[in-house]
Amino acid sequence: MTSCTLKPVGFIRSTVKGREDAPRQGPEGAPDAWLEIEPQFAEALLGMEVGHELIVITWLHQARRDILKGHPRNDPSRPLTGVFYTRSPARPNPLGLHPLTLRAIEGTRLKVGPIEAFDGTPVVDIKSTSTRADG
Amino acid sequence: MTSCTLKPVGFIRSTVKGREDAPRQGPEGAPDAWLEIEPQFAEALLGMEVGHELIVITWLHQARRDILKGHPRNDPSRPLTGVFYTRSPARPNPLGLHPLTLRAIEGTRLKVGPIEAFDGTPVVDIKSTSTRADG
Repeated sequence: MTSCTLKPVGFIRSTVKGREDAPRQGPEGAPDAWLEIEPQFAEALLGMEVGHELIVITWLHQARRDILKGHPRNDPSRPLTGVFYTRSPARPNPLGLHPLTLRAIEGTRLKVGPIEAFDGTPVVDIKSTSTRADG
Repeated sequence: MTSCTLKPVGFIRSTVKGREDAPRQGPEGAPDAWLEIEPQFAEALLGMEVGHELIVITWLHQARRDILKGHPRNDPSRPLTGVFYTRSPARPNPLGLHPLTLRAIEGTRLKVGPIEAFDGTPVVDIKSTSTRADG
């Protein structure tokens, strides 16, 4: 096995259109956004309840994949650090982890936040963080 | 864009060889394991320090991808729940999230734990959870 193929299960719909709008990490003033799940995955949302904490995993499709080290937060005063020891979006497999709260559900559209991901970012997985839904 | 291709950056080397050895979630008695990073990604480990908390993302290569709902923890007394509201390994994109502690570093081999992933599981990303390495 030399590769694994992800299939987007949905997309982020956000007022954050690009780098100029985006805070560096979600909790720092990021807005809420809509997560539009593709209809064929609707059953995977069964039982979800507003107010619960989720982890959304995105594919950061605009991030570079050829960068292995950098200065955290692009701050040259911070020591050069391997990307596996940072949360930079640039990394060999640009997966984004977004802990967030489920604010509202409208069919297969979930309102979630706060989330700094750009509009149009593919969503590849959603997991519960609550023990209630352990599984 | 209809798919995103992940490239393994390393593999888990563990005494957990299959389902019969595996606890359901990491904290429930899972062992430590070695994470062997492929040599071409060595620079992405720069600056890592023993004792820090990491999130390792794996590709659960033995998990089914066609299951959208189930009973959490395979317990029929729990209500049928969508996989996006559980932590079941069976899901459209079988990504595993493993919060763990870095126990030791030997070149491109990291001793980490606790982790319930099977021996041979591909690792696709590693992120810092610490604010020190924020980026």
